[in-house]
Amino acid sequence: MNKSIYDRATKVLTGGVSRNTIFREPHPYYVAKAKGSYITDVEGVERIDFANNMASLIHGHSHPAIVDAVTKQLQNGTAFTMGTEAEVSFAELLINRSSGFERIRFVNSGTEAVMTMIKTARVYTKKPKIAKAEGAYHGTYDYAEMSQTANPNNWGNIDKPNAIPVVEGTPQGAINDVIIFPYNDIERTIKILDQHANEIACVLIDPVPHRIGLFPATNDFIEAVYNWTRKNNTLLAFDEVVTYRVNYAGAQDSYTVKPDLTAMGKIIGGGFPIGALAGRADIMEVLDPRGKILRHPHSGTFSANPISTTAGRVAMELFDEEAVLALNVLTEKAKHQIEESIKIADVPISLTGAGSMFRIHFQANAPTTYRETYQTKEKKEITNELIDYLFLEENIIMINTCACMFATTLTQKEVDRLSDALLNGFKLIKPKLDLLIKNNQKNITILSNC
Amino acid sequence: MNKSIYDRATKVLTGGVSRNTIFREPHPYYVAKAKGSYITDVEGVERIDFANNMASLIHGHSHPAIVDAVTKQLQNGTAFTMGTEAEVSFAELLINRSSGFERIRFVNSGTEAVMTMIKTARVYTKKPKIAKAEGAYHGTYDYAEMSQTANPNNWGNIDKPNAIPVVEGTPQGAINDVIIFPYNDIERTIKILDQHANEIACVLIDPVPHRIGLFPATNDFIEAVYNWTRKNNTLLAFDEVVTYRVNYAGAQDSYTVKPDLTAMGKIIGGGFPIGALAGRADIMEVLDPRGKILRHPHSGTFSANPISTTAGRVAMELFDEEAVLALNVLTEKAKHQIEESIKIADVPISLTGAGSMFRIHFQANAPTTYRETYQTKEKKEITNELIDYLFLEENIIMINTCACMFATTLTQKEVDRLSDALLNGFKLIKPKLDLLIKNNQKNITILSNC
Repeated sequence: MNKSIYDRATKVLTGGVSRNTIFREPHPYYVAKAKGSYITDVEGVERIDFANNMASLIHGHSHPAIVDAVTKQLQNGTAFTMGTEAEVSFAELLINRSSGFERIRFVNSGTEAVMTMIKTARVYTKKPKIAKAEGAYHGTYDYAEMSQTANPNNWGNIDKPNAIPVVEGTPQGAINDVIIFPYNDIERTIKILDQHANEIACVLIDPVPHRIGLFPATNDFIEAVYNWTRKNNTLLAFDEVVTYRVNYAGAQDSYTVKPDLTAMGKIIGGGFPIGALAGRADIMEVLDPRGKILRHPHSGTFSANPISTTAGRVAMELFDEEAVLALNVLTEKAKHQIEESIKIADVPISLTGAGSMFRIHFQANAPTTYRETYQTKEKKEITNELIDYLFLEENIIMINTCACMFATTLTQKEVDRLSDALLNGFKLIKPKLDLLIKNNQKNITILSNC
Repeated sequence: MNKSIYDRATKVLTGGVSRNTIFREPHPYYVAKAKGSYITDVEGVERIDFANNMASLIHGHSHPAIVDAVTKQLQNGTAFTMGTEAEVSFAELLINRSSGFERIRFVNSGTEAVMTMIKTARVYTKKPKIAKAEGAYHGTYDYAEMSQTANPNNWGNIDKPNAIPVVEGTPQGAINDVIIFPYNDIERTIKILDQHANEIACVLIDPVPHRIGLFPATNDFIEAVYNWTRKNNTLLAFDEVVTYRVNYAGAQDSYTVKPDLTAMGKIIGGGFPIGALAGRADIMEVLDPRGKILRHPHSGTFSANPISTTAGRVAMELFDEEAVLALNVLTEKAKHQIEESIKIADVPISLTGAGSMFRIHFQANAPTTYRETYQTKEKKEITNELIDYLFLEENIIMINTCACMFATTLTQKEVDRLSDALLNGFKLIKPKLDLLIKNNQKNITILSNC
């Protein structure tokens, strides 16, 4: 039945999917129902969900408190050309949560949040360019997605990485307006920023970037960039769409300095489409409709709709300081158990992560840069094999980069299942990993003999 | 109570709102509940809704069939890292509806739909620029919003209108990549397009552009642009986010030629955040994840989520050929009644529109270009006075451009209330309109005496 739905899908959706995320060979699987951390597909197979819709469900599926609140709001309408108290209450909640948030605006997705943040930074600083880290994902706005998929053939010298568009046909004008720096590399980053000091509206940073390798920015790095921005009329803009879950007040709470602007999304929608931009009141003022001149007119048909803001408020109320702590402790426990599995299976595998997120890497030493994290075709094949094995044989759903994004509905039982399943998976791929290392060593030997 | 919520809002949301749309002096109003075409605010005042959340609710508020379907889906989850049959069924429905739709992709908003459409056109044609009509609104992607708010001080010669950014600080690179043409002006438009024939990825057209004046593109204009695009490896891209309601198969069904790509949003979400891109299979193929090279990787955390696609499917099933026809007939009737009110009040006012939409203009002859529609400060003040009078004294909600976007929940009773209320409103603003005309004539006389 999964196959038959996909057969229909290929006739109407490009590639048979509306989001590449859900695509898998030979066909995607389709959900019949989901509750807590368990998803049942249309063929009745139940799986444990460690992906939580790409990190967007902090309380798993169909949480009763969220379902109740949304069911109630549904009776009163979902969208109006007027305001609702829901958007105000939720804005108050988020502003009370993070000390750097003075004003907020809601949008419909993380992509829109980052786009609005970049546009806001340009208005405020009167400068056209942005700087971002090689490999970091920030949604699909041309400027924000630059170099997310840079590869060894095009990324260029690490001292001055090339700006590589993700989508073919990206205008040269957009490419020219993005400065790429190597994440967590203070010396090179500052040198690169210095070369464009008069042109950069904001330095865009995801403090725990999934695609770079899901390891946190160091405090030294954030401080160095922050200090540079203070000297150069530039804003420090955090993308916390994924990472807001890391601490009660966001990943930004781990640092001694705070961003000027923060983009959010994912978990703050309680399972419904949302994005948000928060930050300093004097900067956010460029969006104010009461000004004589509209410097940055901003609306959005579904922005701040009462369904997303109600679900989000309930979800974030439930994700209180205690819940954040408990979830991070459970995730830490899972990582320890997986590290045990790695030892037992005797495989060159490492873990990175922060808070309730972690990612598995097929290398003995955890990567510390995007270029170290970058997967060769061979490694990607091994990754896919493990992901498929877990999904099909162990009934476990992980993100296809081998990452887990925990939800409060997970318990020790599911964590045990995960580490057991991974042990089996690691044993399965061990021969291929060992071969890969052997071939690499051979290549190195050949090279050193040249 | 509306005021006290707004007082709270100003402390957390920039300008006290999350969308400028809902802002009004001295404060916005907040919804307690809404049913069909009636909205009750937090102070218990009930108003008739002719705005329908900026044209996004084709069945008014809390339609029982949509509420039921969404309530059911809520129990089974709202978002997954897997597919759902809901997205496939809804894609099938839309593709069966419009003959030009061969493949589709869902996103979260009209802004995202237009952005994805433009990026897709660039990949397919390998060309960087877009052409768009002066004054047309297409969401907030820099390229798409260019010249939406152009004014007499900056719009330049009509033979070659300037590209004027909406947001301060828009990069020059983006400005350079947008070609502006005067809507419905075949000769000038073709001449302008000819000057950039090798660079234009798509000509972006809203077939009934609200901000230009809510009058349809002529068939001759669409044909001329279509023929030009055939000769110049350029795509014809329709923005039907607002206008898909006009006919059963969209406003595009009014023309002898079809667009290559169509962006949608608003009503196809059944009251929930959505956007969609549909069009020719060979073009949409650039989004296919099964290709060797990902030419245009596309996902989106909430794209095609089963709440928006379920609500959208139910809404569009209910908006069948008969319902479209009946709604258009009712709207036509409303226009006739309002024209009667205009005659009785003896005011220099005209109407434009198509299908279930119309807009009131404060000029005796309906405008036929953006520059004619453009409102001076004086006219804007009169518009605001009428909108406020309707909202506060007549309990009638219209879009702040004096536009109505009908819903199937409206009946003759509400239409009568609308034309009566407008008659009162027209009488109220008549002295100011008359004065405006007198002053304008004086100015013209002075000028002709110079």
